[in-house]
Amino acid sequence: MMKLHPRRPHGIDSLTDIAFKLFAERGYDATSMDEVATVAGITKASIYHHVSGKEALLAHGLNRALTALFAVLDESAAKEGTPRQRLEAIVVRVAEVTMHMLPEVSVLFRVRGNSPTERDAMTRRRAFDREIAQLVTAAQRDGSMRADIDAGLLTRLIFGMSNSVVEWYRPNGRTPARTIALAVASLAFEGTGEIDASLKAAVE
Amino acid sequence: MMKLHPRRPHGIDSLTDIAFKLFAERGYDATSMDEVATVAGITKASIYHHVSGKEALLAHGLNRALTALFAVLDESAAKEGTPRQRLEAIVVRVAEVTMHMLPEVSVLFRVRGNSPTERDAMTRRRAFDREIAQLVTAAQRDGSMRADIDAGLLTRLIFGMSNSVVEWYRPNGRTPARTIALAVASLAFEGTGEIDASLKAAVE
Repeated sequence: MMKLHPRRPHGIDSLTDIAFKLFAERGYDATSMDEVATVAGITKASIYHHVSGKEALLAHGLNRALTALFAVLDESAAKEGTPRQRLEAIVVRVAEVTMHMLPEVSVLFRVRGNSPTERDAMTRRRAFDREIAQLVTAAQRDGSMRADIDAGLLTRLIFGMSNSVVEWYRPNGRTPARTIALAVASLAFEGTGEIDASLKAAVE
Repeated sequence: MMKLHPRRPHGIDSLTDIAFKLFAERGYDATSMDEVATVAGITKASIYHHVSGKEALLAHGLNRALTALFAVLDESAAKEGTPRQRLEAIVVRVAEVTMHMLPEVSVLFRVRGNSPTERDAMTRRRAFDREIAQLVTAAQRDGSMRADIDAGLLTRLIFGMSNSVVEWYRPNGRTPARTIALAVASLAFEGTGEIDASLKAAVE
C-alpha cells in the first residue's frame, strides 16, 4: 500500500495554489492531476474528494485573478479624480496584483479559449479591458492623454508593459513589487523624457 | 499504403515555417513531429530525411529570430547618433522584427532553458539584452534618459511593452506593423503626456 504523507488538510484553495504553480511553470496542458496530487502529498484518488478535476482548479484560480483585477476598479483611487488620474492608479494596482498573484495572473494571460472555463475567463478579461479602454478614451477626450495613438492600441501597450513583468518578476527578487509597479505606471504615462523630433514626426 | 500529397518540395526552411506556426500556437512540447509532417503533407519517416528532429527545427527557427534581432543592432540607425537616438531606432526595429517574424520571436520569448538548444538561445538573447542595457546606461549618463528607474528595469519594461505585441498582433489586422512599432517607441520614450504630480513624487 502506498504511504501517504499529507502535509496539511487540503481543500480547493490549497490545491489551486499547488496547481497554479505547476500551470504557470509548465503550462496547463503539460500538468497532470497526478502531479498536483504528488506535490500535495495525496493520492490521485483522494484529490477527487476535494475537486472534480483539473478544469475546476483552473476555473478556481482564474476566478481569483479576475476577482482581484475587478476589485482594483472598485478601489477609491480608481473611482475618484479625472479619467487620467484613475487610469494611473489602476495601472499601478494592476501591476501590483499581477505580481502578488503571479501564478494565477500568468495563467490568465496565456488562456487561449480551449475550454468553456477558458472562454468564460476570456469573456471576463475582455469586459475588464473594455472598462479600461473607456477610461483611456475619456482621458483622450478631455485632453489629458495623447490622442495620436488609437485608444485600443494605447490600452494594449500600457497593459502589455505591465503584463510583461510576469516574464521575469520573482517574489524574492531585489526590487519590491511596489517599486516595479510605480516604474511601470511612471514609464507608461511619462515615458523616458523628451522624444527625438524625427520619431515624433513619424508617429504624427 | 498511405497516399502522399506533397504540396511542395520540403527542406529545413519550409519545415521550420510549419513547425513554428504550431509551436507558437500550441507550444513546443505539445507539438509532435507527426503533426509537423501532417501539415507538411509528408510521412513522419520522410520528415527525418530533411531534419534530424524537433530540436533541430527549434534551433533553426530560434536562430532566425536571434539573427534578425542582432542584425537590428548593425543597422546604421542603431549605430549612429546619441545612445538615446540609437535606442529609439532599435526599439522601433525590434518591434517590427517581432511582428514580421511572429512565430519565431514568440517562441524565443517563451524559451525556458529546457534543452541545450533553449539554453543556447537564452545565452544569445541575454547577450542582446546586455547590449541594449549598455545603451540605456549610456543614455542615462548623458542625461537623455531618466535615471530614476534602474537601467535593467527600464530595459525590461520598454522591451516588455514591445514583446507584448506577440499576444495580439495578427499579420492581417487593421493596424500596420510599422504604425504599431512607432507607437511602441513613442509611448516608451514619450509616455502619454505629463504625469500626475503625486505619482511622480511616489517614484522619486
